[in-house]
Amino acid sequence: MKVAADTETIYLDNNATTRTAPEVIEAMMPFFGNRYGNPSSIHSFGGTVRRLVERAREQVAALIGASAGEIVFTSCGSESDNMAIKGFYREHGGKTRIITSAVEHPAVRNTARFLRDGRGVPLTELPVDGEGMISPSALDSLEIAPGTLASMMWANNETGVIFPIREMAEAVKARGGTFHTDAVQAAGKVRINVKEVPADMLAISGHKLHAPKGIGAAYFRAGTPVAPLIHGGHQEGGARAGTENVPYIIGLGRACELALGRMEEENTRVRALRDRLERELLAKCAGAKLNGHPENRLPNTTNISFGGIEGEAVLLHLDDAGIAASSGSACTTGSLEPSHVMMAMGIPYTYAHSSTRFSLSIYNNDLDVDRVVSAMPGIVDKLRRLSPFV
Amino acid sequence: MKVAADTETIYLDNNATTRTAPEVIEAMMPFFGNRYGNPSSIHSFGGTVRRLVERAREQVAALIGASAGEIVFTSCGSESDNMAIKGFYREHGGKTRIITSAVEHPAVRNTARFLRDGRGVPLTELPVDGEGMISPSALDSLEIAPGTLASMMWANNETGVIFPIREMAEAVKARGGTFHTDAVQAAGKVRINVKEVPADMLAISGHKLHAPKGIGAAYFRAGTPVAPLIHGGHQEGGARAGTENVPYIIGLGRACELALGRMEEENTRVRALRDRLERELLAKCAGAKLNGHPENRLPNTTNISFGGIEGEAVLLHLDDAGIAASSGSACTTGSLEPSHVMMAMGIPYTYAHSSTRFSLSIYNNDLDVDRVVSAMPGIVDKLRRLSPFV
Repeated sequence: MKVAADTETIYLDNNATTRTAPEVIEAMMPFFGNRYGNPSSIHSFGGTVRRLVERAREQVAALIGASAGEIVFTSCGSESDNMAIKGFYREHGGKTRIITSAVEHPAVRNTARFLRDGRGVPLTELPVDGEGMISPSALDSLEIAPGTLASMMWANNETGVIFPIREMAEAVKARGGTFHTDAVQAAGKVRINVKEVPADMLAISGHKLHAPKGIGAAYFRAGTPVAPLIHGGHQEGGARAGTENVPYIIGLGRACELALGRMEEENTRVRALRDRLERELLAKCAGAKLNGHPENRLPNTTNISFGGIEGEAVLLHLDDAGIAASSGSACTTGSLEPSHVMMAMGIPYTYAHSSTRFSLSIYNNDLDVDRVVSAMPGIVDKLRRLSPFV
Repeated sequence: MKVAADTETIYLDNNATTRTAPEVIEAMMPFFGNRYGNPSSIHSFGGTVRRLVERAREQVAALIGASAGEIVFTSCGSESDNMAIKGFYREHGGKTRIITSAVEHPAVRNTARFLRDGRGVPLTELPVDGEGMISPSALDSLEIAPGTLASMMWANNETGVIFPIREMAEAVKARGGTFHTDAVQAAGKVRINVKEVPADMLAISGHKLHAPKGIGAAYFRAGTPVAPLIHGGHQEGGARAGTENVPYIIGLGRACELALGRMEEENTRVRALRDRLERELLAKCAGAKLNGHPENRLPNTTNISFGGIEGEAVLLHLDDAGIAASSGSACTTGSLEPSHVMMAMGIPYTYAHSSTRFSLSIYNNDLDVDRVVSAMPGIVDKLRRLSPFV
């Protein structure tokens, strides 16, 4: 099987998935080796592992200002979202109403739509403006009461746009509703503090913050009902059955600890790299336009349309140049339609079709940006000469 | 933090969890390193990973005689069981009936009971005899029709007793019902072939067969409706959202390949070790009795009661001697009641309370058995002198 020269890839698709941090691998390795005990076992071989799982829970809690007892380990951000939303539905039954935004990740969007289509739950998907931003006042005209769940993403995966989560959570809570936020893209990149933002539930994904794919966490504020999505054994205090994924749990704890320590770098050095990449691409590629709010954005993300050419063609040419980027969400790859995020923003079809996301991480540097800035104008020119749209 | 001298532990708790095979670790490592691409990404950095995920799917399928397209990767055996049973309920709605055995793992038992208690689904839990065996004829008097789901474990986690799965699956299918089997303990230890056993759905757990904790697989026979438990992205053909746990998926594939190659050793050398352990413990410990059918059992499992003493006390003394065993399921640890398996078998209370499970793997050897055989009689004598029961 042909193996790409992965070490040479310039990886700018960190909103799809991230490199597992070497420090995280190091933290996990003993638990693939001799420390393979089951934390639920009575013997000390399992018991010592159980204590490390609880330390990891504290590390995850610390990233978002929560208490360890408010964290449930799951297998991914999607499971965390499903657990929160379906659990809320189960707790409230026929009285549930759901409010989301039109740009949610499929893990929230499709779960809410499943409850709408399969269970008859009233669902409102709030629009965003042309910059992908939502207005808290959009909640004013809606019926919000106990039994209402609002699920709004902290930051968008495609544009990086950061929602006014605090204002929305406060507005929903003030009227007796429950607030959930998919913080999968935000956690580790920007400061999150559930002491300041009154969200009841929050989803985290490990592989977006340099832990491996296959681990996530769900925050449930103390007092919030927790309904299991997976029934069975008593693990996670009865909230989530299944033998604990010990190596990844310990890895996620370490990754959260690292992210907390690196948030300053993420918001200075990485932000500066992203800003330069964005500035130079907009300047050097004819017809390039930024998608998303210019200010209220994750520090690592830029989404640019190159009018009149196909985003997939851009990606394949970038791929040939050893650069990994994305046309939007890896979770919707394969669809020929422009992403629902671009559509909701009202981006014209030919621009939406050419949207290209570059998402950086602390492992990127100036040379990476140089390479993209040097490759992109030629790719755009070549594709534009071939395009039926121009 | 004190760390047990784990390398010296004699580990006889392989039905709780297993050592991750060195070959599995080796197969996974590149995907924690430079090959961290998202298999759903369009770039080749992700695409080469996608092909390896599909090869792993073939390896898992091969272990049970299935086709790759019939395998869905999940995060654990419990998720596989939940997905099958709750998915069946969703597909059949109010017409569902469920039949299980009285000795199912909590992942099946509690999921079925959740549907009974929360959704009003009629549930029959078939009894077992004093040896933990079930009779296929117990199905004769039950109402079985389309809409009936029978979920019967292939082999019991506490006793190792192997159910007559083929006969039960054939009986259920002949009457239009659907058959699911929790094969978590059987897969990799005894031969499973879905070409010979007409099960519609089957659950596998990675960490019971030397893959890591946190990965599982669900088999859905071609044509069987598959309802997602986790909604969101299009991963796993829309059956299970969430970015694929690439390292563990590749590890599970390798573990299944290894298990297939080692099944002969499991059923000869490991079985002989287990038989000697069992024979000598029954001979040397006064009042010791075997729990479970003497013949129809997994080759690695023995469950022995030492009348009149506490199983937990046995385990703690074994632990002091550097031996890890179990009082039953790690998934029910913490309960003061004897296990539901022992209760269903009608084991007298004081015997049930002292049941001790030794579960071996290919990593055990004669010296391990010698150590247990030498330690146990003294532990039993000491505890019996202290016991209020005798």
